[in-house]
Amino acid sequence: MSGTLIFGRTLSHISYIKSRFLTKECFNKCATLKSVRYFSVTASKKMKLVQFSYNDKPGQIRVGYVEGNGVVDLNKVDNALPNNLLGVLKNGDLEKVKKIKSKNPTTVPLSNVKLEAPITGQDKVLCIGLNYLDHCAEQKKTPPEVPMMFSKFASCVVGPNDSVKLKTDVTKKVDWEVELVVVIGKEASCVKAADAFDYVVGYTVAQDISARDWQKDKNAGQFLLGKSMDTFCPIGPWIVTSDEIGDPQNLDIKCSINGEQKQSSNTCQLVHKIPDVIERLTSVMTLYPGDIILTGTPGGVGLYLDPPQFLKPGDVITSTIQNIGTLETRVEKYTKQ
Amino acid sequence: MSGTLIFGRTLSHISYIKSRFLTKECFNKCATLKSVRYFSVTASKKMKLVQFSYNDKPGQIRVGYVEGNGVVDLNKVDNALPNNLLGVLKNGDLEKVKKIKSKNPTTVPLSNVKLEAPITGQDKVLCIGLNYLDHCAEQKKTPPEVPMMFSKFASCVVGPNDSVKLKTDVTKKVDWEVELVVVIGKEASCVKAADAFDYVVGYTVAQDISARDWQKDKNAGQFLLGKSMDTFCPIGPWIVTSDEIGDPQNLDIKCSINGEQKQSSNTCQLVHKIPDVIERLTSVMTLYPGDIILTGTPGGVGLYLDPPQFLKPGDVITSTIQNIGTLETRVEKYTKQ
Repeated sequence: MSGTLIFGRTLSHISYIKSRFLTKECFNKCATLKSVRYFSVTASKKMKLVQFSYNDKPGQIRVGYVEGNGVVDLNKVDNALPNNLLGVLKNGDLEKVKKIKSKNPTTVPLSNVKLEAPITGQDKVLCIGLNYLDHCAEQKKTPPEVPMMFSKFASCVVGPNDSVKLKTDVTKKVDWEVELVVVIGKEASCVKAADAFDYVVGYTVAQDISARDWQKDKNAGQFLLGKSMDTFCPIGPWIVTSDEIGDPQNLDIKCSINGEQKQSSNTCQLVHKIPDVIERLTSVMTLYPGDIILTGTPGGVGLYLDPPQFLKPGDVITSTIQNIGTLETRVEKYTKQ
Repeated sequence: MSGTLIFGRTLSHISYIKSRFLTKECFNKCATLKSVRYFSVTASKKMKLVQFSYNDKPGQIRVGYVEGNGVVDLNKVDNALPNNLLGVLKNGDLEKVKKIKSKNPTTVPLSNVKLEAPITGQDKVLCIGLNYLDHCAEQKKTPPEVPMMFSKFASCVVGPNDSVKLKTDVTKKVDWEVELVVVIGKEASCVKAADAFDYVVGYTVAQDISARDWQKDKNAGQFLLGKSMDTFCPIGPWIVTSDEIGDPQNLDIKCSINGEQKQSSNTCQLVHKIPDVIERLTSVMTLYPGDIILTGTPGGVGLYLDPPQFLKPGDVITSTIQNIGTLETRVEKYTKQ
């Protein structure tokens, strides 16, 4: 094989993409990426924030953070804290959490709990379409000049131990898409790109599950229904606070199906960078604590394989982002409760 | 003027639209509309449900219903009731409300309160594009074979006494769209059209405010951003329970700007009928109590006038739907708080 392998792609392939799609301005941005500011509201907190339930109390959500092989039950340490992360962020209670952490409270073994989706009930689940150079290349599309924003509903969010439920009677073209998720930590309106990371509390992994038939044809061109079926937004396993992640725009990102690697790239391939997306979004709408932005998926989705491949009951989707962790979900056939 | 005027349109014009756009199946559905079942979860409750705040306690939301020139403060009558309508619906507390109503509790004069958006904080604000025959006709478009669904965020919802805030620095093409809103009363998954009205608690009026430049060009074809700017979803003034509205698909619907009538039609012109939309939506996703569906706008929007007209600070948007009432909002220039 000719060329040096970088994240599963050859340098010559990347050069092709750059020459094909990168404007000079965009390329310069890429080149100077390491100098971009990426501090955040949680500088110095360094945590893996979670929502979890005890094995013997299923469905009763609590807030905590992971420490080694255990989880600190924040609601046990301070019962005045809300029992969901959205409430903690809305109240501005992360400072309290930081103080708790400095006292090294005891942990509960991870084996005693189920990790749930780390943030739920938010106002917005925003997504960016066509935002990786290699994903544009596999579709032979020029990246959009502006970020293509669409959305899912908060009720689509499920956790790292939940399943993607396939409604096999209405769609047979359900695809995987690993994505880096930006979690908003405080209210953001009319924010400039230079200040954007101040509004980010942390990052997690998402699988932007997509019914391609509904995304492309069955909703007259609007992505919403193909992206918003129940369970179509697994996220987790935790939210890594910004100070722990390093440069969010220089992280390896991978996805495998049943152990076979399908996607392998790096977040440096993001076409529209996180600060620019936040500036654009907040120019028209207010972002609130807990809002999440799925930043787009790299190449290697099932739709553009030859022949195309789609998810089926029994599949295991394993999505990993460097410095965050691995989100693994199973695929099941939907059955009405 | 030739032809008989019906809701501001001539019969010959409607015949043209029918012959141009109505399939035989669709026409038959229209013809038999009056036989469609439209009972609901709230049969026999007959109320105008509201959220409101006292003039001397701005921002403190309470739940009630309007009776004559007053409002019954349900939280005062029963302090165990949630102080927001979403909570009341989620708890299944409408039966409690019905019992309260049967005792004819005292009212507070409407002049002492501010009516707020009647339902807020919901998971979904769903909207249907191109869903009136006359709106399709003014764009010279064939109605989509399937409902074109897009969404707004719950945070876009404002009330009958709030303002639409124009960000005149980012958009100069903000348009009006009066719409009938369906309010979901209980969890709905895989619902058949014949049963769909059982899941509807009531109806209200919306203005689906739309920044045409962002809807058409500035978001790569996805409607989301043009539809989801802050304040872009005024609803109200109340939710009329289903048993009080008559046939929701046979209501006059009108919108005027500064007193000049722009839209005048009837909900019988809906291309995709409410039960069919609910069946389609619930085939792919669960609808939850408080979710709202904006059912589309009739002809007469600003974009397709000659020359096009758009909203400007100072404008007053007056939207009326028969058997519901009038939602009147002012347009202001956005200023950062």
